[in-house]
Amino acid sequence: MQNPVTVEVTRGNLVESRHRGLGVVVDASGKTVFSFGDAEAGVFPRSSCKAMQALPLMESGAADAYGFGNKELAFSCASHSGEDVHVAMASSMLAKAGQDVSALECGAHWSSEQSALIHQAHTITAPTALHNNCSGKHSGFVCACVHSGTQLKGYVGYEHPLQQEIRGIMESLTGAVLAEDNCGTDGCSIPTYAVPLKGLAHGFAKMLTGQGLEPVRAKASRRLIEACMAEPFYVAGTNRACTKLMQVAPGKIFAKTGAEGVFVAALPEQGLAMAVKCEDGTTRAAEAMIFALIARYFEKGSETQETLMGMANRTMKNWNGLRVGDIRVTDAMFA
Amino acid sequence: MQNPVTVEVTRGNLVESRHRGLGVVVDASGKTVFSFGDAEAGVFPRSSCKAMQALPLMESGAADAYGFGNKELAFSCASHSGEDVHVAMASSMLAKAGQDVSALECGAHWSSEQSALIHQAHTITAPTALHNNCSGKHSGFVCACVHSGTQLKGYVGYEHPLQQEIRGIMESLTGAVLAEDNCGTDGCSIPTYAVPLKGLAHGFAKMLTGQGLEPVRAKASRRLIEACMAEPFYVAGTNRACTKLMQVAPGKIFAKTGAEGVFVAALPEQGLAMAVKCEDGTTRAAEAMIFALIARYFEKGSETQETLMGMANRTMKNWNGLRVGDIRVTDAMFA
Repeated sequence: MQNPVTVEVTRGNLVESRHRGLGVVVDASGKTVFSFGDAEAGVFPRSSCKAMQALPLMESGAADAYGFGNKELAFSCASHSGEDVHVAMASSMLAKAGQDVSALECGAHWSSEQSALIHQAHTITAPTALHNNCSGKHSGFVCACVHSGTQLKGYVGYEHPLQQEIRGIMESLTGAVLAEDNCGTDGCSIPTYAVPLKGLAHGFAKMLTGQGLEPVRAKASRRLIEACMAEPFYVAGTNRACTKLMQVAPGKIFAKTGAEGVFVAALPEQGLAMAVKCEDGTTRAAEAMIFALIARYFEKGSETQETLMGMANRTMKNWNGLRVGDIRVTDAMFA
Repeated sequence: MQNPVTVEVTRGNLVESRHRGLGVVVDASGKTVFSFGDAEAGVFPRSSCKAMQALPLMESGAADAYGFGNKELAFSCASHSGEDVHVAMASSMLAKAGQDVSALECGAHWSSEQSALIHQAHTITAPTALHNNCSGKHSGFVCACVHSGTQLKGYVGYEHPLQQEIRGIMESLTGAVLAEDNCGTDGCSIPTYAVPLKGLAHGFAKMLTGQGLEPVRAKASRRLIEACMAEPFYVAGTNRACTKLMQVAPGKIFAKTGAEGVFVAALPEQGLAMAVKCEDGTTRAAEAMIFALIARYFEKGSETQETLMGMANRTMKNWNGLRVGDIRVTDAMFA
């Protein structure tokens, strides 16, 4: 199946670049409400499924034992920009479990956000694992392991009990069989599994509604999603898409991006979840697609819908502030 | 015409993202030696055609009058990273014409290269137009205007004599008719014109060989291309693709990237020029395509060919240095 051109980047009166994509909206029963492109194609969710990966932290009782509130829970699901509050939060979570940066196995990198990187350059000589965009998820992993008495070293490994538990959770939520043949290694060294895009969306619809889940998992899922919506800065950071999206209509939109052009969202009022993937892995296109797809489920003409469409179809300016073109979603996305 | 998938990005055993592209290789007569995808499609060359835009600097006699050598000429064709030597070179060129940063109309931005940006953060409070990746081209523009007595202010405008001259040069080289309907505004505020990809490649084949050009233009073209090959650091910077590519086989490869996935190259020994465009505008794919396309014209098994293919098909590692996947060109590119 050929994925349609869903996003165009224009310059002057011409289209300069084109992005193809796939996307799907499902309800909690798994019914496809809307789709475009090959919604059954296998995609690596990458960081878009961090809320699923945070479930052991909740279900083990670790989050409650360490007194984690919305900020910590949101941060456990984050791909953050390594801003000061993020780094401090990672340290704080680790300290609750009697650990420090040395327990993290995610590796270190400078922020990929320009303003955050400039601040880092002014204040540190080199980034640590606390600055890694995944340090929240990994701090949650460390807390889950310490609380349950699981060996900490090697917690990123395919055979480690924590990753086995996450694999089981993701199989149950997405309906996909996960094994080494659809497993890759993520940027932060944990396993990432290719799942059908529709399965990914369905997993979030289950987490959103609790439908078909054990009570413990339903409660844990709901708490994580609500924490992200309540503290969107801890999920990403200044000027980041996830943060801005969850600020558009507080409590009404859950959203999480993943590398290589993946984005998921869940809408509590509508009971729907959705996932998109840009075929070529480009973030600008994944963002435009998810903004427009979410907008479809808010009342036409409402402030929320108009704000979202203004984010989906936006003007690009150059270094002198002159308009040079637009990024816009195509009709093919909604054909 | 459907552009083929030319570059795949893998993770584990699976393809995670796919890029489509078009490309063409031509000789100086304009004969297509090889192509893939819709090689007649109009594309904005963006910065890939900076050597064409530097011709007025040469042909007006300004470059000789100001005593410019290979470094200045290479820098006039550059999309640089704003490293210290680049900033100093922009100042130096402007000073030759009795001008300074205030003459530049390109706007200011921080370096888009991480290590250069960190250095900038340590050494400056804010970037100026000297740090703009196009400051070399703009310094050349300023020198050309001052030398020829053309009004300086507004030199980026569509109707300014310099841009009219560049428009004429580009029409002559590419064979395309350039006017407002295929004109956009570039990041640095000058006009950029969509031309058939094949015309872009043909223009560089003419510049490379001088075939069909007036002697003055042939000589100017050759000097610019040779200057870039002689001083590749001034064309881009540390770890940049253009710089590395021209260092692979000194004097045997001219190459220049442009925004939104464009790359051109010219091979003096083979008398060929080529251009590629990634449909979705992604740099990683444009780089892989041009590396592999250039490699095709060097002897199989030679060090140059193997180095180029090693750049085209490369392993991606994560923050812990673990192999997570590959970027590779597909057979479709050479089918």
